[in-house]
Amino acid sequence: MAQTAPARIKVGIVGGTGYTGVELLRLLSRHPHVELKAITSRKEDGLPVADMYPNLRGHVDIAFSSPDKAELNKCDVVFFATPHGVAMNQARELLDAGVRIIDLAADFRLKNPSMFEKWYKMSHSCLDVLAEARYGLVELDREGIREARVIGNPGCYPTTVILGLAPLLEGGLSLIDTNSLIADCKSGVTGAGRKGEIPLLFSEASDNFKAYGVAGHRHQPEIEAQLSRLHGSLIKLTFVPHLVPMIRGMFSTIYARILPGAREVDFQKLFEERYAGEPFVDVLPAGQLPETRTVRASNKLRIAVQRPGNGDQLIILVVQDNLVKGASGQAVQNMNLMFGFPETAGLEHVAILP
Amino acid sequence: MAQTAPARIKVGIVGGTGYTGVELLRLLSRHPHVELKAITSRKEDGLPVADMYPNLRGHVDIAFSSPDKAELNKCDVVFFATPHGVAMNQARELLDAGVRIIDLAADFRLKNPSMFEKWYKMSHSCLDVLAEARYGLVELDREGIREARVIGNPGCYPTTVILGLAPLLEGGLSLIDTNSLIADCKSGVTGAGRKGEIPLLFSEASDNFKAYGVAGHRHQPEIEAQLSRLHGSLIKLTFVPHLVPMIRGMFSTIYARILPGAREVDFQKLFEERYAGEPFVDVLPAGQLPETRTVRASNKLRIAVQRPGNGDQLIILVVQDNLVKGASGQAVQNMNLMFGFPETAGLEHVAILP
Amino acid sequence: MAQTAPARIKVGIVGGTGYTGVELLRLLSRHPHVELKAITSRKEDGLPVADMYPNLRGHVDIAFSSPDKAELNKCDVVFFATPHGVAMNQARELLDAGVRIIDLAADFRLKNPSMFEKWYKMSHSCLDVLAEARYGLVELDREGIREARVIGNPGCYPTTVILGLAPLLEGGLSLIDTNSLIADCKSGVTGAGRKGEIPLLFSEASDNFKAYGVAGHRHQPEIEAQLSRLHGSLIKLTFVPHLVPMIRGMFSTIYARILPGAREVDFQKLFEERYAGEPFVDVLPAGQLPETRTVRASNKLRIAVQRPGNGDQLIILVVQDNLVKGASGQAVQNMNLMFGFPETAGLEHVAILP
Amino acid sequence: MAQTAPARIKVGIVGGTGYTGVELLRLLSRHPHVELKAITSRKEDGLPVADMYPNLRGHVDIAFSSPDKAELNKCDVVFFATPHGVAMNQARELLDAGVRIIDLAADFRLKNPSMFEKWYKMSHSCLDVLAEARYGLVELDREGIREARVIGNPGCYPTTVILGLAPLLEGGLSLIDTNSLIADCKSGVTGAGRKGEIPLLFSEASDNFKAYGVAGHRHQPEIEAQLSRLHGSLIKLTFVPHLVPMIRGMFSTIYARILPGAREVDFQKLFEERYAGEPFVDVLPAGQLPETRTVRASNKLRIAVQRPGNGDQLIILVVQDNLVKGASGQAVQNMNLMFGFPETAGLEHVAILP
Repeated sequence: MAQTAPARIKVGIVGGTGYTGVELLRLLSRHPHVELKAITSRKEDGLPVADMYPNLRGHVDIAFSSPDKAELNKCDVVFFATPHGVAMNQARELLDAGVRIIDLAADFRLKNPSMFEKWYKMSHSCLDVLAEARYGLVELDREGIREARVIGNPGCYPTTVILGLAPLLEGGLSLIDTNSLIADCKSGVTGAGRKGEIPLLFSEASDNFKAYGVAGHRHQPEIEAQLSRLHGSLIKLTFVPHLVPMIRGMFSTIYARILPGAREVDFQKLFEERYAGEPFVDVLPAGQLPETRTVRASNKLRIAVQRPGNGDQLIILVVQDNLVKGASGQAVQNMNLMFGFPETAGLEHVAILP
Repeated sequence: MAQTAPARIKVGIVGGTGYTGVELLRLLSRHPHVELKAITSRKEDGLPVADMYPNLRGHVDIAFSSPDKAELNKCDVVFFATPHGVAMNQARELLDAGVRIIDLAADFRLKNPSMFEKWYKMSHSCLDVLAEARYGLVELDREGIREARVIGNPGCYPTTVILGLAPLLEGGLSLIDTNSLIADCKSGVTGAGRKGEIPLLFSEASDNFKAYGVAGHRHQPEIEAQLSRLHGSLIKLTFVPHLVPMIRGMFSTIYARILPGAREVDFQKLFEERYAGEPFVDVLPAGQLPETRTVRASNKLRIAVQRPGNGDQLIILVVQDNLVKGASGQAVQNMNLMFGFPETAGLEHVAILP
Repeated sequence: MAQTAPARIKVGIVGGTGYTGVELLRLLSRHPHVELKAITSRKEDGLPVADMYPNLRGHVDIAFSSPDKAELNKCDVVFFATPHGVAMNQARELLDAGVRIIDLAADFRLKNPSMFEKWYKMSHSCLDVLAEARYGLVELDREGIREARVIGNPGCYPTTVILGLAPLLEGGLSLIDTNSLIADCKSGVTGAGRKGEIPLLFSEASDNFKAYGVAGHRHQPEIEAQLSRLHGSLIKLTFVPHLVPMIRGMFSTIYARILPGAREVDFQKLFEERYAGEPFVDVLPAGQLPETRTVRASNKLRIAVQRPGNGDQLIILVVQDNLVKGASGQAVQNMNLMFGFPETAGLEHVAILP
Repeated sequence: MAQTAPARIKVGIVGGTGYTGVELLRLLSRHPHVELKAITSRKEDGLPVADMYPNLRGHVDIAFSSPDKAELNKCDVVFFATPHGVAMNQARELLDAGVRIIDLAADFRLKNPSMFEKWYKMSHSCLDVLAEARYGLVELDREGIREARVIGNPGCYPTTVILGLAPLLEGGLSLIDTNSLIADCKSGVTGAGRKGEIPLLFSEASDNFKAYGVAGHRHQPEIEAQLSRLHGSLIKLTFVPHLVPMIRGMFSTIYARILPGAREVDFQKLFEERYAGEPFVDVLPAGQLPETRTVRASNKLRIAVQRPGNGDQLIILVVQDNLVKGASGQAVQNMNLMFGFPETAGLEHVAILP
């Protein structure tokens, strides 16, 4: 679609007051090919963005504005950093006006509308757009994303688990037992968004560790749908998310049983080759283990492959910054592809350590 | 009033869902002379206390109940762990029923009703009870508290600043310049209570440090009123509170200029002698500096006195656990005195370190 | 052995400068049946304990002393809060002097000396004492411990994993697949001890999450040995420890596949009945999930049993304070049994929340 | 000196294993005009930098090397990210080889060698270089720094306190009482460096707040010397540093008494005008208060000016990231000036919030 990249595209953000919104602003404000035209918030209409997020003082000069269709229709792309269920109601009109869409919520992640309805407790209002939307996991669908008009930007947990399992499953590979997959996942608190809820208070979440959503979490059907598509058959997994007292960062420990026929496979090499050349996926050298801080505030996702005692248990450990590769950075990566920019444009930050 | 202590008194708590409430429950559930009769919460009526605060499972078996005057009137003492403005509306009836009152909010802290109205934005509804209430800082008014029917339990910041300055001011002493007092205070996040507010989120407060209320904070008139009363003349101070990314703990760094006539005073000795025998005030040996963790979850307050280069600047450093000596522990200390129990009953916990 | 409990026993601690040492002091200093006679540290000889751990000011008045055999030989029990390999060299002489021993390190945990040698890189110097030592997990061996002269106090991870799996395995039960057990464990930083090592710095461990020891961790053979003993056949498990940016607390997420013949079992009930009456093991009501802060600074261990979608995957979630039930509290619990005190003596603290 | 900026300069770093070293690498690895030639560490010779700091994987490909004079002599500039006392022994030879020097330690901060000796416990070995060195606080000496061959990069605390007081003191202004200045400063833990010391452990520093160095801190003479130079007369201040449980960030609360003759001054305007146009100093609008997270990982320093009740007490609140504007970012800012690059080159990062 976008063979020759324009110098700068016009970008709008709907619902920019949450953490994925401010992170989009951080990334887009320094993006060489982006002109930020509008950031909407019904509630904060008129408030300078930098008054809510003072880290942006001197970098972002615009104010939140009430959603204005005419204004958004003039953009080249609109990001939705809104709650689930907003993008699907505005997508059709934007597309008709020639605007491309990247939704950071779940409206365009699940192809099956009944699954969407089951897990998000609302019926899908825009099935034709859902039908054309691409799941925005670049490393698995780079060419499809280049041509897409609508992107369902992946959930944070799914990004880690799908990329952690893809080399073992894609194309129907018979390497691991697909009946006993386990993803024990841990997320920093920003994964829950910017909401004034008691369990997210510092006084509650600090110096504490807990599991949540063990009986069922929205990201599980998303992971299973993508893995099943990759593998060509139905994949189920056990998924347990946990809350870590840290601001950013996600760590997934994935357990897979090696099938008898695959015991001679060099899994380290398999992963290294699968992700060779990927600018944002880094397979660690054998023996090294990842830490979330090694990707803090960057778009990198790092993977380690472990096989204790060279036995039948494979352990894949994946880290990312949930707000970057797990959300806003991945959204910008999608945008770069859609408009023919270098995939890494605006995303070359070195992680902040310490 | 309470010459011979009863074996056990009947205790009620109004509004026990906040942090001072759960802390009261932690302390009272193991108190040898307390029988917990009722803990009220209109909103959580019927919910077992241990379902909201699972640390109490196996220790506190009762449920929250809707406020029931008949039930509370049967208590010996009622604690108010409510927002400001609640206790003053219920105090008269309880007193008439022979129930004593300890209010952890501000209703009975400021003797001057116009100051109360100015800082708490409501007029005082119970001036006669206010008139008889004692300010519950035991170390400054032990005998008065024994006889009291109503206690205004001190604010957390005031406890540190008043005890940090009392030895220098009480009885009209002329040791320090009373025109240039500064209290640079730092509080853990529980000091702000258990409220679902954005600035109190882990994602906002963690790995961050900030000042707040620089233009004016409610604890300033409370501090000034008590210091003025102690000294016998009007005392003003500069007071700047800050928010520290820790759960519990309060640290006050107090700056006082030594008057020319007091340069020979041994301030270390002055403090040691003033607080000798106090079970909950610990003056550190010369040269040692306090840390908040040395009082975590205990009712101790520790003070260090520093005079760099033996010059004119005196620095008093004070730590306490804002939820214990700064709130619920001090309230229990008051109760112990009021009912003739040993002052340390139920308060002998060793601080949790690490 | 100890039919009638003495009013007070004489207690010594060898190597009390680490975190399990200070935690022992916190617990023992308020224990109604303990007289603390000596706490040794070669390096800190003469230093008042409260100067190193100021939370103990006013509670513990003794100083560290150089190890003195005559002094320790007069004790009724000696705790070793030392590095691995110290207790085994002093045990024989203490036993001969009639002193009982509780070792918080690993010297008496692994009955198989070659396993000890393999994992701790030293040969065992005291095989006869090893032979008589009991593994101090009270809930599994209460009567044995009452009679013991030497206790190998369990490791922190093993306490959670063994108690989390015992109801499913003991006595050779055929409820779960013993070939695919997974324990994904998470520990606060104090689990690594008080050592001046770079990875334990605040600047390294804060706002970070990582796995470690994936290729092999010392607690794995300990867990496997105990589970195998319980079950009566060899049990292996996959064990992955992680480091959480919190001070205290341990969370184990344990995955077990239900065998086809056990699908009708009520696992919630199984756990509740197994631990009914246990003072320190709390099985949460169905549906509730544990948090580490609900046991902070207390000797409680809380367990939840989850079976998502009523399927074949059982998930057991276990929390404890690694320094209390995972170390020093459990040691005191053992001592109480050995000397005929109430099992809960000195251990009745309510957890600190928030 | 550097009228026309070269496209790229050759840069060496001596002693790059500490936090200021890795932060230099983060900044320089993306700097458009820098070619990183060498980073030395005697201890880590041969270790790829990215193995020690995995956030640099894919960004920095070189390894640590043993210090090699020939190699360093070929650089255009060498940064010393070493302990105090290293740079002064190597400076002369580098200068003779035409290499410019930026020392992040204290060797070239104090012009008075006896003060250096007093506070750093070593005599100065390179007085002639000390004599020509410039104190690298760009906002106060931009032109001098352009011409400098040797920069003493300011300490972290001094950067905040000097920039916070400069508008009130420079040129001998008579606005505030220079006898009662107080700087109550708070630093994140990285301010203490990357050293395996017990008080810096997560288990010690987390959920804790303390003061340190109250009796005397090395940054005090540095602050006093610079303020005295600015004002033209001797300035003393009271300086109390505190440790905050956060990784990065520094907050200084500065108290100054307004002189009677200056009561009509508009201090907000004074600060705004003084720092107008400064790319890295941001005076907040009246009424706004700074937070350390608004500058996290950026080179910004933000200042607020408060005058409670329009009285005589002026309060200046200053935040910076201690590793960036307080260390490595400021060093790069100095380098940019010395070589004629745009002052903001490589330093345009938006702060990371949340």
